[in-house]
Amino acid sequence: MTATQGFGDRVRDTLARFGPLCVGIDPHPHLLADWGLEATSGGAREFGMRVVDAAAGRVGIVKPQVSFFERFGAAGFIALEQVLAAARAADLIVIADAKRGDIGTTMDAYAEAWLTPGAPLEADAMTVNPFLGIGTLEGTFRLAEDSGKGVFVLAATSNPDAFTAQRAKLEGGQTVSGGIVAEVSARNAQTTADGSWGSIGLVIGSTVDWSDAGMSAVDPPAPILGPGFGHQGAGPRDLPTRFGASAPLVIASESRSLLSAGPTGLAAAIESRVHEYRSFDA
Amino acid sequence: MTATQGFGDRVRDTLARFGPLCVGIDPHPHLLADWGLEATSGGAREFGMRVVDAAAGRVGIVKPQVSFFERFGAAGFIALEQVLAAARAADLIVIADAKRGDIGTTMDAYAEAWLTPGAPLEADAMTVNPFLGIGTLEGTFRLAEDSGKGVFVLAATSNPDAFTAQRAKLEGGQTVSGGIVAEVSARNAQTTADGSWGSIGLVIGSTVDWSDAGMSAVDPPAPILGPGFGHQGAGPRDLPTRFGASAPLVIASESRSLLSAGPTGLAAAIESRVHEYRSFDA
Repeated sequence: MTATQGFGDRVRDTLARFGPLCVGIDPHPHLLADWGLEATSGGAREFGMRVVDAAAGRVGIVKPQVSFFERFGAAGFIALEQVLAAARAADLIVIADAKRGDIGTTMDAYAEAWLTPGAPLEADAMTVNPFLGIGTLEGTFRLAEDSGKGVFVLAATSNPDAFTAQRAKLEGGQTVSGGIVAEVSARNAQTTADGSWGSIGLVIGSTVDWSDAGMSAVDPPAPILGPGFGHQGAGPRDLPTRFGASAPLVIASESRSLLSAGPTGLAAAIESRVHEYRSFDA
Repeated sequence: MTATQGFGDRVRDTLARFGPLCVGIDPHPHLLADWGLEATSGGAREFGMRVVDAAAGRVGIVKPQVSFFERFGAAGFIALEQVLAAARAADLIVIADAKRGDIGTTMDAYAEAWLTPGAPLEADAMTVNPFLGIGTLEGTFRLAEDSGKGVFVLAATSNPDAFTAQRAKLEGGQTVSGGIVAEVSARNAQTTADGSWGSIGLVIGSTVDWSDAGMSAVDPPAPILGPGFGHQGAGPRDLPTRFGASAPLVIASESRSLLSAGPTGLAAAIESRVHEYRSFDA
């Protein structure tokens, strides 16, 4: 990695080295209890630190779920700052799963919170919500690109409730999900050279039927964050089936399927799952 | 107000007493500079406290913009906790403009953060994003109703970028915005008796053309948060024009138009604007 390498290429190199598995950092109330930790910001911090320890050197990417820290208010954010810093110090790519979305300078302030180098909540990338229009995210895209960071735009999620808004039809007949993939790809095309990956990624659920959702392959290449591997039933062998030509772009995020192994079993669970993904490589 | 009064009725009574004006608490970087405050969490806290002082007794509702606190990380959330507590202690209804959205227990954790009585970030209501499906918000609706809190679901915003996804057509030909208004109204109909307002509100921009957006009047009544009054050009006389039969439900939120009066001019600016809204009452 060079100092000037963009986020997309950093993900490309990381996937080549470690495979697609990404470990979610979800201090869910039930998991805290299972791990023998208190349902407090201190418990969430401890949980996050142990996941970082188990993930470091075994996978390339972790995804802290912001809501499970936000639940504890400012104290939860202090814990999250410490977990983010530990993960980045361990050379993990950190995707803050924040799903922020707003307009104008209000959205820009969210981007500054998570993507400014040196900021207390600094991550390598954040997830964002495009419901207020892809144009509202332009300031976020620019801030990310200028600082070697990435953005993941929600395009299609696996939960049945999501079908309504995401599969609604735009004026030209395209689905909303299809339109988001097309707009993000057009945006990446402005900044990527041959062989490079765009730094504006997409969130596409692991069990989404691409044709049903009206999405075409992601081109130019850009990282696809696929939440719901493991827990929602999708596994390593579904990666090529579900994502087709875009499968090599996928960051397969697993949370509960790994985290339920508990603090002592987590490292082994991660290693075993990394191996499974490797055995289904193209 | 009784202990068992729902959020919708609390807003109804507050609008009758104070009129529709809601003061935004937006410690925007430019405003912090104009107010002679530092661009730090301490500056944001001081800004918020001064707005609360100027708003108390003059309006019934304030709307802190979370992103302008989140920008400073955990320290910003400590400041926000203090501002939220001060506003609630001053008997203001506090709408946390957080626009959170996620699925399942992840969304529930956001609701717990902002709507749990006694939580450090406790507000009276929060704004949420329905892009992942109205069904993902059911846990949030229930938590709100059980604790006398409110929720505002993004339905239609004024920014031109928003038109694409929000005006896409659902299977039956309805727009996404129209579908959200209908789903939220159906949800409120399950819990409201005659004369009562639902506690699940909507966010509908002040310059949205309702017919163009495919939305019908909000029925049963429920609070409508209308951001963008003042700054985006809409004012007191536009309230009945834009919102038609739903105008009496509107919380007219103004931020920069008032906040640019500076710390010494703010109270007078609020009073003058309250009077303007009063003079256009039906």
